[in-house]
Parts: sequence; C-alpha cells; structure tokens
Amino acid sequence: MQKILRVDMSNCTGAYEEVPPEYEAFGGRGLIAKILLDEVKPDCHPLGKYNKLIFAPGLLGGTVVPSSGRISIGAKSPLTGGIKESNGGGLTASKLARLGIKAVIVEGKPGDDSLFILKISQKGWELIPADDYRGMGNYQLVGELTKRFGSKIGVASIGPAGENLMAAAGIANMDIDGNPSRFCGRGGLGAVMGSKGLKALVVDDSGTRNIQAEDPKKLQETLREYIQIIKASPVIEAYKKYGTSGMVATANALGFLPTRNFHHGRFVGADRIDGEFMYNLIRQRGGKGLTTHNCMPGCIIGCSNVFPDSNGEMVVSPLEYETIGLFGANCYIDDLDTIARINYLCNDIGLDTIEVAVALGIAMEAGVVPFGDKEGALKLIKEIGQPTLLGRVLGAGAVTTGRVLGIINVPAVKGQAMAAYDPRSVKGVGVTYAVSPMGADHTAGTTARAQVNHLDPKGQVELSRRVQLTVTIYDCLGLCMFVSVAMGPHPKVLANLLNARYGWDWDAERLLELSKETIRMERRFNQLAGFSPVHDRLPEFFAEDPCPETGSVFDVPQEEIDQCYNF
Amino acid sequence: MQKILRVDMSNCTGAYEEVPPEYEAFGGRGLIAKILLDEVKPDCHPLGKYNKLIFAPGLLGGTVVPSSGRISIGAKSPLTGGIKESNGGGLTASKLARLGIKAVIVEGKPGDDSLFILKISQKGWELIPADDYRGMGNYQLVGELTKRFGSKIGVASIGPAGENLMAAAGIANMDIDGNPSRFCGRGGLGAVMGSKGLKALVVDDSGTRNIQAEDPKKLQETLREYIQIIKASPVIEAYKKYGTSGMVATANALGFLPTRNFHHGRFVGADRIDGEFMYNLIRQRGGKGLTTHNCMPGCIIGCSNVFPDSNGEMVVSPLEYETIGLFGANCYIDDLDTIARINYLCNDIGLDTIEVAVALGIAMEAGVVPFGDKEGALKLIKEIGQPTLLGRVLGAGAVTTGRVLGIINVPAVKGQAMAAYDPRSVKGVGVTYAVSPMGADHTAGTTARAQVNHLDPKGQVELSRRVQLTVTIYDCLGLCMFVSVAMGPHPKVLANLLNARYGWDWDAERLLELSKETIRMERRFNQLAGFSPVHDRLPEFFAEDPCPETGSVFDVPQEEIDQCYNF
Repeated sequence: MQKILRVDMSNCTGAYEEVPPEYEAFGGRGLIAKILLDEVKPDCHPLGKYNKLIFAPGLLGGTVVPSSGRISIGAKSPLTGGIKESNGGGLTASKLARLGIKAVIVEGKPGDDSLFILKISQKGWELIPADDYRGMGNYQLVGELTKRFGSKIGVASIGPAGENLMAAAGIANMDIDGNPSRFCGRGGLGAVMGSKGLKALVVDDSGTRNIQAEDPKKLQETLREYIQIIKASPVIEAYKKYGTSGMVATANALGFLPTRNFHHGRFVGADRIDGEFMYNLIRQRGGKGLTTHNCMPGCIIGCSNVFPDSNGEMVVSPLEYETIGLFGANCYIDDLDTIARINYLCNDIGLDTIEVAVALGIAMEAGVVPFGDKEGALKLIKEIGQPTLLGRVLGAGAVTTGRVLGIINVPAVKGQAMAAYDPRSVKGVGVTYAVSPMGADHTAGTTARAQVNHLDPKGQVELSRRVQLTVTIYDCLGLCMFVSVAMGPHPKVLANLLNARYGWDWDAERLLELSKETIRMERRFNQLAGFSPVHDRLPEFFAEDPCPETGSVFDVPQEEIDQCYNF
Repeated sequence: MQKILRVDMSNCTGAYEEVPPEYEAFGGRGLIAKILLDEVKPDCHPLGKYNKLIFAPGLLGGTVVPSSGRISIGAKSPLTGGIKESNGGGLTASKLARLGIKAVIVEGKPGDDSLFILKISQKGWELIPADDYRGMGNYQLVGELTKRFGSKIGVASIGPAGENLMAAAGIANMDIDGNPSRFCGRGGLGAVMGSKGLKALVVDDSGTRNIQAEDPKKLQETLREYIQIIKASPVIEAYKKYGTSGMVATANALGFLPTRNFHHGRFVGADRIDGEFMYNLIRQRGGKGLTTHNCMPGCIIGCSNVFPDSNGEMVVSPLEYETIGLFGANCYIDDLDTIARINYLCNDIGLDTIEVAVALGIAMEAGVVPFGDKEGALKLIKEIGQPTLLGRVLGAGAVTTGRVLGIINVPAVKGQAMAAYDPRSVKGVGVTYAVSPMGADHTAGTTARAQVNHLDPKGQVELSRRVQLTVTIYDCLGLCMFVSVAMGPHPKVLANLLNARYGWDWDAERLLELSKETIRMERRFNQLAGFSPVHDRLPEFFAEDPCPETGSVFDVPQEEIDQCYNF
C-alpha cells in the first residue's frame, strides 16, 4: 500500500496519508503537477510558507525495471515564478519507492532560520536538527551523513546556495558511489528547500526489497522485451561510449554550440572539449577514471562517467554535455580539467550548472572577467559559495545577472537560462524553450538528435510537441529519457510495464493521455500564476541577430508556436 | 498647428509629422498610451531598438494656465516590463509646447555606444554628438549645456545611471533655477533614454510665446474661476507652507509611514524629519533656503522648497515626502541633512529616489549596512554612480536587490517599488499599487488625504478608482495633480479651459471618458505585454504580517480589486 508523507516545517509535525484514488495513476512529474495544482496557491511567494516542495518517484520507481530510478522534485519555482519539476538520478527515488512512499510533501517553513534533516526509514520519519551542517558543501555533507546514518541511505541535499536562497540552487542526489552529483538542478528548487529549512532528505531503505509487481510473470516477459530493445539500439551504444558529451561535436558541426554568451554557434576549441577527446583523455589517464558509469542503480545505459585528473584521482562524476558546452564553448574555455573543477564546485555549492554557466557567460560579456579566463571562472564560482556579492549576483541566475550588469542579450525564457542549444540553429529546441511550462529547459523536449533539417522552421512545432509528449511520459514513470531513444517506437512496452506493476490495462493511447494531462495541469498552474502565451517567446535577439555560423535566425512563426499545445 | 517630432537614433534621421486627427484629443499620459499601443510591440525588449521613448506635454501645455507645465515621458518600462508614463515639473513641457510640439518620439538605437543631444528650437531639430558628456552627473551637465546653448533652454537629461541602463534610472528635468531636479523618476525611463544613446533633450523656445487660445476671452474668464478656486483651498495653503513633507506627521500618526523596510508603520524619529521640523529648520538657517518654491513656471501652488545647509547654501531642491519617508523612516535615518545629501546625489546620478530608497532598505535588512547608518547610506548611493557592483545591484531596483540579497519581503508590485505608504494602513493606496498599469505608484492615485478610515477595507476600491480616474485627467492635461485637491468638485472648469484652448465643447463627462480611455489603453498594452489580473496583487507579506503599529493587514478582497476597472 503506497502512502504520502506530509511534513510541516513550521511546527515539525507530519503524517503518513493514504494516496487519494485520483492520484494513483500519477507519479513523478505528473503527480507533482497534480499536487501543486490541487494544494498550492499559484500566486504564492515561491520562498514563502505557502509553497510546497515535493519529492516523487516515478510510477515504476522501486521496481527491477532498469533505468526506472529517476527522482522528480517539484515546487513553484523562485527562478521562473511558475511550476517546476526537475528530475535526476541517484538513489533517492528507488529508496523512497521501496519504502512505499509515492510522494513526500514538505510544506510550511520554520519561524527562524533553523535547519533540519528529514530522515525516513521503515521505522518512520523524523526531523533532526541540522544546524551543525549549516554552510556545509554537499560532498562533506553526504560523507558525514553516511558516517552517521550508515551506508544504506540515499540523500537529497542542498549546499550553501540553497541555504542562501539562490535562484540557481539545485538539489543534489547522492549517487551509487556516494557522490552528491545527480542534480535536480533547474528552477531554483534548492532555494525552496533552503526556505523550508531542509538541509537534507535522508532515506534509509534497510529491510525493504524491490517493489513486487501485481503480475510478476507479465513483468518478466515485458522486461525481456524492454531490455532487448534497448540493447539493440546503436544510439544507446554511443551513449555508453561518449555519454552526453558526444553532443559537443554534433552541436559544433551544426552550429548550435552556444559560444561567447550565445553570440556564436561554433567554438574554435570544440575538439578539446568534445566526447572523443574526453574519452581518450579518461582512458589515457586511467586510475579512477571511467568512460561509462551508471547514474542510478539498475541503469542499463551508463551514459555517465568519472573524470580523473592527471594522477587518476576523480575530479568529478559525471561531466556532461550541458556543463561542457556552457562552461566550455559559451565561456570560451577549451579545457576539460577546468570545466571538471568548476563542475565539482557547482556540485559542492549546490548549483545548477546550466543556470550558473549562462550567468557566467553574461558576466564575461560585461567584462567582469574575460571570456576564456579559466582561473577567473573558477574564482567566480567559488564566490557563489562564500558568497560574495558577485557570487550572490551569479547565484541569482542569468536574468538577474543581466539586469545587474546591464547586458541586454540574455538567453532565457520565463526567467530561466537556456541549455547548450542555440535555438537559431536547432529550432525545435527553440520551440520547446519557448513554450515549456518549465521555462527554457532542454529536458522538456530536445529535438537535437532528430534526423531533420534543424535550420528549417517548418515542422519544428510538431516535432517539439511530439518529443515533449514522449519525454513527459518518461518523467511520469521515473524512466531515464535516454531510454526513449530506443523505446520511442514501442510505447506499448511501457504500458505493459505499468500493467504488470499495477494490474492495469493501459495502452499507448492511455500513456499519451497521461502526458497530455500532465502538461495541461502545468500550463494551468502557470496560467493561474500569471503566465500567458505572451511568455511563450524567445528573447528578441534570436529573431534579430543571425547566428554568424549558420546565418540563421529563430523564425518559427509565433502563431504556430502558440498552437503547440493544441491537444 | 501642432506637430510631432520623430527621431530615429539608429541612423540619426528624423522629421516633423502632422498630428493624426485621432491623436488631437490626447495629450501627456493619454497620448503616450495611444502612441505606445499603436506603434510599439508590447513584447519588445524595453532596452532594445523596438521600444520608443516619448516626451509629451499635456493638453494645456504652453498656455498661461497656472500649473499646466508638467511633462509626461513614457515608454515600455525596463523595470516593470509594462507601459510607463512618468511625469514631472521643470521647463521641458512648456518649452516643447510653445514650439508647437505635441510629442517627441525617440526610436531605434545607435549601433554602437554613441551618445547624442537632441536639440530642438524654432530653427528645427538636430542630433549633436555628446560623447564628451559621457558619465557626467546631471548638475554639471545642465551647467555645461546652459553655458553652451544659452539660458533659454529647458533640459531633460540622464546621469550615469541611465547611461548604465539601470532600471532605477530616471530622467531629470531642469527647473526654473537651473537645477536638474524635477524627475520623471519612475519605471526606469532613464535607462530607456540611455539605451537610445540620448544623453539630453535640449529645448530652446527663444522667439516663441505662450500658446494662444482659440477663444481668449473664454480662457480669461475660466482662468479667473480656476485661480479663485485654488486660492480658496486651505489644503493648498498647507502645501505652500510644508509642501509634501506635511505628510510625514500624518503618515506617522496613522501608522502608514514605512519604517525599516516596511516592517513597521511608525518611526521613532519622525518628528526630526517631518514638515514642521523642516519648515523651522529652513527658516532658521535662512540663506538660500526657501520653504516655498515653484516646480515649474506658472506654478500656483509652490509646494516645493530649497533645503539649505547650516551655512545657508542649497543642498538640494526640492526635498519631498517620498524621499524623506523612504530614505528617512524606511532606512531609519532621522536626519534631514543626510537625506538631503542623498537626494542631491540621486539627482546627480539620475536616480528614482523611491526605487533606490526601497532597494537601500532591503540592503539594510540584509545587513549590507545597518539600518540608520547615515554614512553607510551615502556611501552606497555614491556607489550607484561609480558604479560598483553593489551600486549596480541597488541601481537595478528593489526587486533585483531582494533577489540578489535573498530578502523575501520586497514591497513592490509589477516589479516596481512602493512609495512611502504602507498599504496595510492606507488601504486605498494599496488598491492603487495593486492594479495600476504603472506598477506600485502612488502618483497613479493616492487616497492618503481622503477623509476616510484608511484601515477599513470597505470602499477602498471605489475610492482608489475615483482618485485614479481624476489623476489621469490631470496627467493628460499636464496639470499638477495637487490642483485636483481644490479643483476636484469642479471638473467643468477644466473642461472649459480645454474648450477655450482648442475651441472644443467638452463637459465633465467627456473628461472622464478621456481618463477611462487612457487607462483602458494602458491596461491593453500591459495585457499584450503579458500581464493578467494575477499581477494585480500585493506581495504576500502584506496580507500575512500585520503592521505592528496598526495591527492591520491588507485585506481588501481580491475579487473587489479585480473589479477596479469595471468601466
């Protein structure tokens, strides 16, 4: 019997609740949309007592289904002012699910600046005073927590950025090696967690086992099919070798690799930061370096990695495309070692690398440090952790950094910075950036791997819609979206996994309806929070200033974009 | 024959245009609304080439009608993202009007960071390179311009804040004594002027005379009545003695004087900054000090003043309630000399004192300097002029300052800081703050002087609506809104002034229609810019945390507020 744990931080009370019947068919991102729409005033202050922070495993969370352990975390976003779901790997989801928890709802806020750990195990939940951990970076924190609570725990935690209510603060999920590196990064959810006085969620699933399916035989059968399809995919094979960093070369070739604060789409130093270069470097350095690595237990893809220094010691794990593209090309830094060190710092401080990298690019355009200044970049990231005033500006995200520094060309939508895809040269991603209730967010539906002419405005809205609807299903099930690369043409398999798990009778159409309903609820929340189609726009300069390398502007007609959610 | 001057800063071209017939009945604020709605894409970037900066005298501008010389300046606001009209005194409006100019429309922007002066005289218009004036404060600037262009000029100019695209930058209009102190302060219009590369508008009306009425006899008759009504008003008599600073004692008594970043409504040092104290201080110091002074030629009220130092030399002129209330009580500074020096600095740098004072209060709450730290406050304002990074943060306004410093209680609506009226204790102003298309702006309709129970939520929407509709008429005519104190019950007199001037046949009803139409156009622009009724809200804490001195929260029902513009 699944349950919901609700904790009120204003008085340290809480209780397990039954799952209302109308919530049963929702999980992960969809469940977050439903709870927020039902329970949270859309016009509340994101850092005030009326906002709620929700942790929700997907519908397949806790099962043996490979790559089903993504955790969805959501709230009203202090960065966008709209709804936000951000998902990541690590241990949090599977452990919550194995404890039978469908969602943890954290509400209220302490009357003072007290900090707490919310610990959940088979014995129940407790709020543990955590003032001793104040200001602690995520790496030291998870080390201390593992020492204190044992090795069976999962941790979702914030660093100083979240405590300091920075809008670029994310939430770190501890990975299988004990690194706080699987981020629910986007939307400033770390600041919401900080506003609630919650330093960490600690989940101990000792004594539990994987969730048993209602129809174990059907699960076994479907699983065989599922694994077969994934293993047969050549794209997934490539993920295993280069991980997401394989995108650097593609983005550079097609001219959508953001360079010098999105003024260019191609980087002269791309071949020193691309997937092949990194692969060879990791192999050559050896030691603790790994070219393939799992982001969560039961991962079947292994797109992650461990990046070692020249002595073979881990610098950071993983090092991914968005971080490489934006701290690399966009900040004009052609050195993976620097980027890896920056990534480590961001993890430790508890920052969304995308938001901060774009903010740093803006600061570079303003001349705070020059483009390409490696030591300057490292210094500025450290300042976010202290924080200095400059650190606070950068930690407030790209839009605020632009406002403070007087930079007009800020690549952001609904207050959130774009990921490492220049929308002029990969227009389907531009459509997703424009319309997604999540703000500019490539995980809401990137079209970059589709076999289309990315410069042609035609068909991009339809493509974006299709990808968004697909990705949303994965976000609701707790599946890694990379599985979709192989599983796209086989939605019935996903439906059958659910049917086996819950004893349902879903088909592909029902899955699609779940996705549509989720996006509709998110849009509805945003509408009630003050968003209108006018906010579904890219910044002016993408339509005005051609990308020098492709000669292209973002020219998908707005009327078409406004029809993206015509379902 | 009136005309419109249109100047394109992207190529330094321009032309006089005939006034389209449908524009004839509009002036000042109303004309700005009409032009912006007709010509400017509401979703454009406020600091981009598609925004337009408009200078428009009111319908009575340039006539002999006393107190008819207010200048309206407007654009899409970089602070709010919505429409903005800000009006001020000085010489700009009457000189433009005497040159037959109904509006100056400044559009486009230079391709580089060139600066220009737009000079207008009977000989025509010219754009004069102004790079030599870069970074110059407003006081030195108007001195140099007067030396260069003679004593018959009016000047509207920006200081370093506008050049640096700060969202708290205003536009200074030179007053009758040659001081750049009559500000169109709100909404960041100085940044729009800076983005256009326009350092100053210089208007030389040599060789012109007052605008002649279509019906001079009728004008004379109506003027007699107009002047009689104003002279008979005891409230206007009080304005002459204390100016706006008379409000300090009232606000303190009624508990709506914002104190310590709006956490309190009463200030222990109020009697050291109030109108009577200032009146006595100015009289006692003598020298250049004046307890009454005109904000524009032909002013009949004289609410302004000249604040002297202990040697009788001018520190600043004028020193007004908003500045005193917000740099005084709200920053916990009980010293008029410090406030006057801050005011001078703000004028010189080209800043909206309201926006910056609220930002400073937020910085004080964050501990950047303590509440009440006079030297600290002066230092921070100077930093905006340099600018340091901290200066840039404050210069970006209250909301950005709050985001950077992690302060949640930010007294602002639609991105703009509140003036010196705590909406919990003067709820009619709270309604105006909430709904006005201008963002939190007391000049859109303050109810503070109405003889009502300001704590009672009942009737406040109706009161606010009535005041807003009245004020808008004054903003369209170019009349000082303080005239309305006396003229409120006599709208027919205003209509007759217009009838005499233009040969029209307006009545009070037609005037009201002008006002309604103006607000409708402003709301429409904002709607197209992305605003919805959801944005017509006060910050959460005003409904949650009672003002300690009055025990009152802001509790005007939102459904009522949403009906404010039901005309």
